[in-house]
Amino acid sequence: MKVNIIGLGLIGGSFALGIRKAFPDVEILGIDASEAHLHKAAELKLIDDAAEFGEIKEADVVIIAVPVDAAKKVAIEVLDKVGVNTLVFDAGSTKAGLCETIATHPNRRNFLAAHPIAGTEFSGPSAAVEDLFRNKTNIICEVEKTAFKLQERALEIFQKLGMRIRYMDPKSHDRHIAYVSHLSHISSFMLGKTVLEKEQNEKDIFDLAGSGFASTVRLAKSSPAMWTPIFQQNKGNILETLDEYISNLTKFKNLIENDDFEEVFLEMERTNHIKTILNGIN
Amino acid sequence: MKVNIIGLGLIGGSFALGIRKAFPDVEILGIDASEAHLHKAAELKLIDDAAEFGEIKEADVVIIAVPVDAAKKVAIEVLDKVGVNTLVFDAGSTKAGLCETIATHPNRRNFLAAHPIAGTEFSGPSAAVEDLFRNKTNIICEVEKTAFKLQERALEIFQKLGMRIRYMDPKSHDRHIAYVSHLSHISSFMLGKTVLEKEQNEKDIFDLAGSGFASTVRLAKSSPAMWTPIFQQNKGNILETLDEYISNLTKFKNLIENDDFEEVFLEMERTNHIKTILNGIN
Repeated sequence: MKVNIIGLGLIGGSFALGIRKAFPDVEILGIDASEAHLHKAAELKLIDDAAEFGEIKEADVVIIAVPVDAAKKVAIEVLDKVGVNTLVFDAGSTKAGLCETIATHPNRRNFLAAHPIAGTEFSGPSAAVEDLFRNKTNIICEVEKTAFKLQERALEIFQKLGMRIRYMDPKSHDRHIAYVSHLSHISSFMLGKTVLEKEQNEKDIFDLAGSGFASTVRLAKSSPAMWTPIFQQNKGNILETLDEYISNLTKFKNLIENDDFEEVFLEMERTNHIKTILNGIN
Repeated sequence: MKVNIIGLGLIGGSFALGIRKAFPDVEILGIDASEAHLHKAAELKLIDDAAEFGEIKEADVVIIAVPVDAAKKVAIEVLDKVGVNTLVFDAGSTKAGLCETIATHPNRRNFLAAHPIAGTEFSGPSAAVEDLFRNKTNIICEVEKTAFKLQERALEIFQKLGMRIRYMDPKSHDRHIAYVSHLSHISSFMLGKTVLEKEQNEKDIFDLAGSGFASTVRLAKSSPAMWTPIFQQNKGNILETLDEYISNLTKFKNLIENDDFEEVFLEMERTNHIKTILNGIN
């Protein structure tokens, strides 16, 4: 099997490691806009060699793992060049814009729109983890638009990497993921910002930070190059979630302000219910 | 050494386990308002036996590990009963109110106001962890108001449990901790609430949640009985941090609304700086 990975960061690199383990005979070629990433990826044996867009025709699988703004352009460029039997899938955190962009491409059936809910706060080839996708959910959108044989190939790969599959339309995906992923990142970035602003004057504040704070701001370490285009492409949904989040914070603030600590207690008790829902997610 | 622990939850129970390991000959007695907690604590060998407030006179060390509203009352009740050589310390997340409450007590010198920055999102005796305090910061307030010999005893215990000591006045403590602990809990609870509200209509939303979301809402599992009085006692500082947090979220929302994604990128890039600061906290 010939695999061509475009974008050798955390996600692309982790696909390389996982696929090499699951398919020992695989040949993995890589493309990345950054020469440094390409070298690092070769050094870490993520890829066997660098590739050119011209070689995509011969690939059995092309994985697009670049930021979601670049992904749209790359998807078109790749679909322009695929062979009849080339499977192309992406891994981006927004799906509606991409699906729309490729909707009328003559080679649309070579493409599978995917979003593995997996990642860490780190980025670049050295952040790649072999088991990143094990027991993670992979959301597939518009599966019916992908050629049946290529669906099969994709599912075999996802299964061997240990993923659970969920099917969803692109708009529902973007709306749901705004809540359970995009909003978390903004809440974490702004928490980090608020504390950093305070810290400018009071240097020792971080001496007081414990594991709870670290957990809550962990996502504020994430890559701005990856997240800016996600917020841009999912603007409508994100603004809606942010409105609701800010409104909930403001209501909670008002409860404290008005000394309604009975209701403060009840608000937290009701939200504790999240315990049972999150069981199994670490 | 005779230790009497009042409040056998996560913190009291973890002190019991840690102290028993560090001082094998210790006798640990426990007091808890909940009969169920007392039984559980005995069953888990956190304590050797249940105790009464009347026995406090004979204790070498009394640890107060109850919610911060109860802690004020308990502190007075304990100081009323201590022997000349009894060390009393607490572990609460607010310090100004407590220090004020005991300020003029004739046995003030038996008390050491402490706040170990350690915990998990779980609660009750079965949440106790032997090594909870290892490599954690313990903030001590108004150390000069504690008898010298009792300071020494406290420091020996804290040191054997593996804690780093920081000294701070109670008001600075409460102001700083509002940022690095109390605000994180509110941001997490309200994030959980926002997503739960959405989930009422869309049951499968949590299928899409990954480890990033789980990390950000982890603190929303925390105990309302513990946190409500903390928010009450640290009201002023918490309102200030919430104002700043809400203002930062609103500004970020406006940037997205106005398509100023250059600034969205820069905001995140500046906040990434938190990486270097959080090194070493897990």
